[in-house]
Amino acid sequence: MRFSQLLIPTLKEDPAEAEVVSHKLLLRAGYIRKLTSGSYTYLPLGLASIRKVEQIVREEMNKAGAQELLMPMVQPADLWEESGRWQEYGKELLRVKDRHNRDFCLGPTHEEVITDVARKNIHSYKQLPINLYQIQTKYRDEARPRFGLMRGREFIMKDGYSFDATDQGAEETYEKMRNAYQQIFTRCGLKFRAVDADSGSIGGSFSHEFMVLADTGEDTIVVCKSCSYAANMEKAVCQENSAPNDMELQDLEKIETPGKRKVQVVCDFLKIKPAELVKTLVYIVKDEPVAVLLRGDHEVEDIKLANILGVSDEDMRMADDKEIFDATGTPSGYLGPIGLKIKTVTDQEIANMRNFAVGANEKNFHMLNANIDRDFTPTLKGDIRKVTAEDRCSLCGSELELTKGIEVGHIFKLGTKYSESLKATFLDDQGAETPFIMGCYGIGVSRVVAAAIEQHHDKDGIKLPAAIAPVQALVLNLSPKDDEISRAAEEIYQDLQKENIEVILDDRDERPGIKFKDADLIGIPFRVTVGKSFSKEGMIEVRSRANGETKSIPLAETVSTVANLITESIS
Amino acid sequence: MRFSQLLIPTLKEDPAEAEVVSHKLLLRAGYIRKLTSGSYTYLPLGLASIRKVEQIVREEMNKAGAQELLMPMVQPADLWEESGRWQEYGKELLRVKDRHNRDFCLGPTHEEVITDVARKNIHSYKQLPINLYQIQTKYRDEARPRFGLMRGREFIMKDGYSFDATDQGAEETYEKMRNAYQQIFTRCGLKFRAVDADSGSIGGSFSHEFMVLADTGEDTIVVCKSCSYAANMEKAVCQENSAPNDMELQDLEKIETPGKRKVQVVCDFLKIKPAELVKTLVYIVKDEPVAVLLRGDHEVEDIKLANILGVSDEDMRMADDKEIFDATGTPSGYLGPIGLKIKTVTDQEIANMRNFAVGANEKNFHMLNANIDRDFTPTLKGDIRKVTAEDRCSLCGSELELTKGIEVGHIFKLGTKYSESLKATFLDDQGAETPFIMGCYGIGVSRVVAAAIEQHHDKDGIKLPAAIAPVQALVLNLSPKDDEISRAAEEIYQDLQKENIEVILDDRDERPGIKFKDADLIGIPFRVTVGKSFSKEGMIEVRSRANGETKSIPLAETVSTVANLITESIS
Repeated sequence: MRFSQLLIPTLKEDPAEAEVVSHKLLLRAGYIRKLTSGSYTYLPLGLASIRKVEQIVREEMNKAGAQELLMPMVQPADLWEESGRWQEYGKELLRVKDRHNRDFCLGPTHEEVITDVARKNIHSYKQLPINLYQIQTKYRDEARPRFGLMRGREFIMKDGYSFDATDQGAEETYEKMRNAYQQIFTRCGLKFRAVDADSGSIGGSFSHEFMVLADTGEDTIVVCKSCSYAANMEKAVCQENSAPNDMELQDLEKIETPGKRKVQVVCDFLKIKPAELVKTLVYIVKDEPVAVLLRGDHEVEDIKLANILGVSDEDMRMADDKEIFDATGTPSGYLGPIGLKIKTVTDQEIANMRNFAVGANEKNFHMLNANIDRDFTPTLKGDIRKVTAEDRCSLCGSELELTKGIEVGHIFKLGTKYSESLKATFLDDQGAETPFIMGCYGIGVSRVVAAAIEQHHDKDGIKLPAAIAPVQALVLNLSPKDDEISRAAEEIYQDLQKENIEVILDDRDERPGIKFKDADLIGIPFRVTVGKSFSKEGMIEVRSRANGETKSIPLAETVSTVANLITESIS
Repeated sequence: MRFSQLLIPTLKEDPAEAEVVSHKLLLRAGYIRKLTSGSYTYLPLGLASIRKVEQIVREEMNKAGAQELLMPMVQPADLWEESGRWQEYGKELLRVKDRHNRDFCLGPTHEEVITDVARKNIHSYKQLPINLYQIQTKYRDEARPRFGLMRGREFIMKDGYSFDATDQGAEETYEKMRNAYQQIFTRCGLKFRAVDADSGSIGGSFSHEFMVLADTGEDTIVVCKSCSYAANMEKAVCQENSAPNDMELQDLEKIETPGKRKVQVVCDFLKIKPAELVKTLVYIVKDEPVAVLLRGDHEVEDIKLANILGVSDEDMRMADDKEIFDATGTPSGYLGPIGLKIKTVTDQEIANMRNFAVGANEKNFHMLNANIDRDFTPTLKGDIRKVTAEDRCSLCGSELELTKGIEVGHIFKLGTKYSESLKATFLDDQGAETPFIMGCYGIGVSRVVAAAIEQHHDKDGIKLPAAIAPVQALVLNLSPKDDEISRAAEEIYQDLQKENIEVILDDRDERPGIKFKDADLIGIPFRVTVGKSFSKEGMIEVRSRANGETKSIPLAETVSTVANLITESIS
């Protein structure tokens, strides 16, 4: 392909509409163009990159025993009525009436349709397990589409669904998918983690998110610096920070702390560390006040607290000062567990603490040497706190790191949620009608490209890994009017194609500066420059976009050099 | 892939819902399943076949210099307002409101979106020509979806759009596309014709339809038996059948023909041939009576007549007996051109006729020896008749054939219809703002598979050409419980894969009869059978589904034999 004939409308300036770096660069490099809010045309370079991701996904899914099919995008409402999601699903579900006034929706996901396929075509345990996937344009009518391909309304997704006869089979399939996903994102050239994740509204009992690590990610994840442990903040666990200690229990002591309410202020006043104090917070949980106790230097993780209370995190909030006083008779800042009449939940680490400070449930007073079980008994105990960068890995004891991630894949063990509601059953080896045990497995294909750019770019432009770059090589003809240079550039261009290397020849009648800038911007992995040093010394420059390494080599060795660099970079 | 693990739900009986053979076989062979009226899930075999077509399309489009991109499926109404099609387009356009109550539609075609891409990103004649295409799921809310993949609501299409600076350039691009389409359908293994076509509602001035020849086609086409000439019935032309003759003009003679009204009856009575009589029909054209004259053995082609009259064919109809009498004062059956007061249109061939019979405009009388120009002067002349199987090719003089076709591709020279309405312009080499000259090029990808089956099947099932069959080879293990046979089948299966041949191993625990029946039904081009003759004589049977040819060969030669057969069949 010749640059002069390709639609690569690069832009000099950052477009005003773009906030995150991948969005800016995708627009500037002519990979995409916006049609309307949250919906983009993938121009030739953008689509080529997406197709690379698709092909890697396809190969690894097939290798793992999955089969590709393609379901309709427009789905009849009946199926969603059966699953109950026609009512449940919010405005993200784009609903539409056909010419006969029948209800349909644009599929944001395909659990209903695939379960319908299964119930009509899979009847015996002998046909199981079966694992089906598709790569398709999806539509979700996001309230605030943003960040270009990161959160669009129309996007390309791989969604897969597995059907197993037994729970154990479903877990084996889940593991196969987890391994396939590891392969996929590794082959894409991404730094990522599979994190233990809360399964959210889609339901199910077991799930992992695949997160591309990038500063601009929307999600905070906890990653072990030495082993493979990684988890979403909401799910992350760690070693208990407060090691059990054998300190002798001291007698309770009430002490005046006039006007001292905040943890740090109280600690400074009492000359103790925040880790030697237990703070008492009040939440309103479904209209009822609940006291929440944890170490002074720790923070509540709402999802963990909600799970222990058996409620949704949407049913809880922090109480305000008036509500605290109404519930406890004590102004906020002096609250403590001793003698407290409302329901209390304590973080598990408090069990290891001895002789800690707490509020005295009296204005301007705290207590020293409080001890759990001796002085108070909580209603519930458990892990309710956020992991911090000071914590240690629960698996290997190494340091943990808090980092940002972009979710590009998500796998769930769904169980029988859909097979039961849609009455999708098979005959098991005893001849009994049994609902399928299902799993579902998604990859945001177009988002992978955006996430890869978030991870691989510099101030000059895109630096996509060679495996998912639109093409591998870019030959710059710096002097299209110079016959000798043009002949050499053309020769390299032709010879690279003969080696099945995807290549663009920049044959445009533009200044070298523009060609170099565009080359960096569109981020083709290997740049081959034919210019003055060829005229003078017969040398060609080969440069790697990823690390900036430059080699000067004779014409005859150019193609083999580029071929080797590509092979090394896609492994 | 192993048959036992694949989702290939074959059916013994023809499904009641299916009328045409491709629909029946696609369902029976487990290629597709219906989700809702006009919308199908492509199961693994069906999708694999579609992907083959897509890849051929992609390769030939790229070779012809086109670039692949992908536009959003959900399109904003604004663009359709600009082109005027938001109002014009009928109920096929599925309209939808998003969460903010803004109007969108599901794209049945993408002229508006691509023209928007062009006006925003192509600014100079130096960037032209440019040819862009996509392969995408489209939606048309058909009133009566039918025939499975032949006329669905949701279907896969390749739609391409070209932009040229000059009319001549646009015609060159058109020719490139015509050649690419020839390549595509040839590579798909189809018997087809490119027919000169009326451009229909999409507008434009130049168009060809690509028709797969099959008895079940919805369209009648005229095809030359020796040269490449082919045209839709509405557009077909032929050599003039009535060669100019030098016969001396005879005097008019009025003759009594009591009760003789129909052409054949009058001719029998007068002892002449229908080719020696000119019949006079009456049409009501926008409320006005028009006499239409043509040779006794010819039929009016309404589209041609409408074109000559400069009206739509919807504005014309045949007059009834009362209307004929009211308009001419003569009962139907005795009408003739001499002395007729209403507007007359004659077929061009009448100019070559001498001394023909016509009605006398008087009940029970005809005239002999009528002659055009001497006895009457028509208002309009032209080609208004249907071509028949007795006609000769206008290009080469050979015999013509009337046959049925299925439209699988359509190319148009659009001109400036969309670039003008959407104000999509570029600066030409004189610096003047000029609208793009556009072309558009469609292929019904999913329909190609259905049309191929209409052309390639027998009573036992599908016989898809190897180039677009889901996989090339099917290995039947007839005795999965026999170790020796199973080992050989497995070896062939593995070795074929090593040669990059796509293959399914039928490893199911089923009777041989069922395996043979399914093999014929799903129509994999080359069947490799490992059964008793392997146990007895060490021989493997290789059979071609296309022609039923069977070879018995030793195990060691099986893979190379199959590989050669495949190479021969995909050329």
